[in-house]
Amino acid sequence: MTKRAKAAPDDELVFVPLGGAGEIGMNLNLYGYGPEARRQWIMIDLGVMFGGDDTPGVDVIMPDPGFIEEHKRNLLAIVLTHAHEDHIGAVGHLWPRLKVPVYATPFTAALVRSKLEEEGILDDVPLHIIPLGGELKLGPFELEFIDITHSIPEPNCIAIRTPLGTVLHTGDWKIDPNPMVGRKTDIDALRRIGEEGVLAAICDSTNVFVPGRSGSESDVAASLEAIIATCKGRVAVTAFASNVARMQSVIRAGAKAGRHVALVGRSMHKISRAAIETGYLKDIPSLIDEESAADLPPHKVLYLCTGSQGEARAALSRIATGEHPHVHLGPGDTVIFSSRVIPGNERLIHQLQNDFAMRGVEVISAEDHDVHVSGHPARDELADMYSWLRPQIAVPVHGEERHLMEHVRLAKSLQIPSALHAPNGSMVRLAPGEPTIFDEAPHGRLHLDGSVLTGRDDSAIKERRSLAYAGYVAVTIVLDQRDRPATDPVVICAGIPDDIVETARQAAGDAQDRLGRRFDDEKRAIEEVRRAVRREVQDAWGKKPVVKVEIARIG
Amino acid sequence: MTKRAKAAPDDELVFVPLGGAGEIGMNLNLYGYGPEARRQWIMIDLGVMFGGDDTPGVDVIMPDPGFIEEHKRNLLAIVLTHAHEDHIGAVGHLWPRLKVPVYATPFTAALVRSKLEEEGILDDVPLHIIPLGGELKLGPFELEFIDITHSIPEPNCIAIRTPLGTVLHTGDWKIDPNPMVGRKTDIDALRRIGEEGVLAAICDSTNVFVPGRSGSESDVAASLEAIIATCKGRVAVTAFASNVARMQSVIRAGAKAGRHVALVGRSMHKISRAAIETGYLKDIPSLIDEESAADLPPHKVLYLCTGSQGEARAALSRIATGEHPHVHLGPGDTVIFSSRVIPGNERLIHQLQNDFAMRGVEVISAEDHDVHVSGHPARDELADMYSWLRPQIAVPVHGEERHLMEHVRLAKSLQIPSALHAPNGSMVRLAPGEPTIFDEAPHGRLHLDGSVLTGRDDSAIKERRSLAYAGYVAVTIVLDQRDRPATDPVVICAGIPDDIVETARQAAGDAQDRLGRRFDDEKRAIEEVRRAVRREVQDAWGKKPVVKVEIARIG
Repeated sequence: MTKRAKAAPDDELVFVPLGGAGEIGMNLNLYGYGPEARRQWIMIDLGVMFGGDDTPGVDVIMPDPGFIEEHKRNLLAIVLTHAHEDHIGAVGHLWPRLKVPVYATPFTAALVRSKLEEEGILDDVPLHIIPLGGELKLGPFELEFIDITHSIPEPNCIAIRTPLGTVLHTGDWKIDPNPMVGRKTDIDALRRIGEEGVLAAICDSTNVFVPGRSGSESDVAASLEAIIATCKGRVAVTAFASNVARMQSVIRAGAKAGRHVALVGRSMHKISRAAIETGYLKDIPSLIDEESAADLPPHKVLYLCTGSQGEARAALSRIATGEHPHVHLGPGDTVIFSSRVIPGNERLIHQLQNDFAMRGVEVISAEDHDVHVSGHPARDELADMYSWLRPQIAVPVHGEERHLMEHVRLAKSLQIPSALHAPNGSMVRLAPGEPTIFDEAPHGRLHLDGSVLTGRDDSAIKERRSLAYAGYVAVTIVLDQRDRPATDPVVICAGIPDDIVETARQAAGDAQDRLGRRFDDEKRAIEEVRRAVRREVQDAWGKKPVVKVEIARIG
Repeated sequence: MTKRAKAAPDDELVFVPLGGAGEIGMNLNLYGYGPEARRQWIMIDLGVMFGGDDTPGVDVIMPDPGFIEEHKRNLLAIVLTHAHEDHIGAVGHLWPRLKVPVYATPFTAALVRSKLEEEGILDDVPLHIIPLGGELKLGPFELEFIDITHSIPEPNCIAIRTPLGTVLHTGDWKIDPNPMVGRKTDIDALRRIGEEGVLAAICDSTNVFVPGRSGSESDVAASLEAIIATCKGRVAVTAFASNVARMQSVIRAGAKAGRHVALVGRSMHKISRAAIETGYLKDIPSLIDEESAADLPPHKVLYLCTGSQGEARAALSRIATGEHPHVHLGPGDTVIFSSRVIPGNERLIHQLQNDFAMRGVEVISAEDHDVHVSGHPARDELADMYSWLRPQIAVPVHGEERHLMEHVRLAKSLQIPSALHAPNGSMVRLAPGEPTIFDEAPHGRLHLDGSVLTGRDDSAIKERRSLAYAGYVAVTIVLDQRDRPATDPVVICAGIPDDIVETARQAAGDAQDRLGRRFDDEKRAIEEVRRAVRREVQDAWGKKPVVKVEIARIG
């Protein structure tokens, strides 16, 4: 194992995932080096994930950086592997709490820059561009960026050399022999680092349940070309905007079929600008805008649209419901979903496909056509990676618990000496000695609820889940100076059927009558009214709403 | 075409789906015969579907039977094809509105009976048992029940003979050459009816996107046996309780591996009782109860559990979270998901699998093992069915719009002369003349919200969706006899972060002050306060809560 500098006797090399080791999303990886009292840290990636039905009203969720915030004086940098939201999406929100330099390759930097601009902190953030294959020294850490392939331009593995050994952080990856856009995987570099000796591989687990290989963007390109060649009417393709190779394949397939291509949706434009700015998408025919496309005959048009996940405000949903100002599809036209279904989005996507079906539009998807490949390594690719690196330790990341566990099993079956299941918050000592989880760092989630960033156990979000289930009854009791009711209780309900609203009103009135003069013990009276309303509503409706009672006193 | 009686000149044969032709679930099919003024009807199936995230707090959804309720004097019967909830689940809720005889084969009748018992209407409902392969005359309709295979005992195709031709209503089906429990598909009968001449086939569309064949329960049995034979610790298998063949396969595989089998979960017991009562599950070893199983060594135990969809109150979820009183799984134990993932349940099921992974329990699922087959026909099976029946008309049902559309395309490719996309509410004239949708029947959904059965556009459920997104502010303004505020406004919030609650309170107070004496125009005042609160909260939070304002007057 190459050791650049000599390790001091009490030096330790530590890995701490605060996000991404328990979910696929919101990656935040920390590497620490040095004796505990003077440990220096680098952060790899700082991403978000999207809110779901268990967090209603929350757009994005990010890792709670509290642990590293406490050590921010010893945090040297944030280093980004690639530009997907689950790796860069929290930079704009959390950088102000950390205030350290940010490093990224050119395409990633271009997208981070536009994010920081939106947050109004572009001028504050020291954002440094690392060339592809570049190197970077940060305190005791020597970083080397290694080309790999994924579903976005410029994904990087990062080799992190320390006096106690080298860690290879894979980032998100696959082995695409023909990625269409950007460089191929630098297998020689991975082998070379393997030869040098790898202490630990911290590796993507997303597709650990998928046998075989993920396939190539070039296969999708060929398949799209064949399908689009046979289409008669208008064609709309939807894909993840960040997949620039896919964007290029669709544009070329359209051109080959004699169609003019228009990008539809904000992020398609944003990403294509960033791609062109950083030297990608050079050999494509010129695009037209969606207004001009509307004037062309159907067989001359191809739209490349955002909204493959059924997002309500994205281009494709608006086209499906007929609300898009310029793009209209009907009988004879075709929509191609060149994308996967992110778990949790099934119903939205199927609804979108049903809307198109109702308009007589033919729907083609990865369900029955080869129009998508994953950007993550299937099992044979994982085996390749481990054969190149031959690490002493495997620590799976980028997965739910079930993925991490399966990845540990796989690594063991591949004869990796140690494989560790290290969920979020695990403080893993990689060296010296046997790898071990020696402590747990505070960890959790922050929810962006409107403009408010709240903790995971946020009571407002929990309460909204209860409201969704059984609605709300707010009761106001008005008392005079002598603690006697001055009006009927005011009962304001939401989300409750009309008959049951009557029940609630009646229950509150009865409870007020029953209490009579016993409002001097305000707390007890409130509790009694609350319980009476909940009980009566439960009896009538079978469900218990959230009930809150307040007392107003006259002058 | 066999015509039993002669059709009168103004007779028509009409098909109207009120549910199931637009969703996979809540099937309700109507067949009408006769001239419009004296048309007689039969209903095939009366099912529910389960509520989702767009209907928070709603357990089940069923078709609005309003159209046939209006014609209930001419409704002859409800005929059930098989016992799945999406075919029988609404009988208990909607029979009181229809009050007609119900017909079913023995196993289906046993489960309907227990449903009616729960609703307390068992004695009211004339429930008639039809033998397998039996016949039934209902007014102008002559029905023949034909054995087929599915994922539950006693699925039936129903041949409906009328003076204007024969309709073959497939119900839910597949072609399982070795269904393990119950009879095989009566292919001879289907061919015979095809020979007689079939006017229309009304056919299952669920798996129209799936190429090939669905596979056999016997393959799953072999696979389960092989997997369970290699397990070392405790084994828990989860499957749909209604799949009695699967239940038998799991029990036998357990016994073969020297394990005692315990059923865990209410519906496992309920269905096994109904199965034994009607002559199934005869050749299985005796079962033990879950308490006794807990005392056996791990390699001697197999649990067959409810909860494959991640349902929070079902056995498997309680085992995963360690809350089950008798069943405990840990390192060395195995859970087998012998089931599919119903779209929309992905996150719940993955959470369950993650919980097991965290306990060190190995999870095996259809994702990477052959432990499940579908009960619905894949494309080659559909082609077989059409080759036997050779109908004049194909009307796909049991599918979302995208399935119905694809099924129409498939039927056309199989040279069926007419294939009709007839979504819910379509009034399809099958004969005489060209098949055509000649009108639209009122149709929709009823939501069971607690104990209240409400219409689809139910405002309470809609409002709860808004509450889930942005919470609730209830404002009470107390006025004295001269229309002047007698207290500060009472502001009761739910689901809103604390800082924003302050904003709302302040906004209501300011609005009350601004209004001063202008509370005589109560409506305008209320609207002004409401708007002010919404605006201020939106400015501070970026989201608009539901805001309601009421005025209390001191007497």
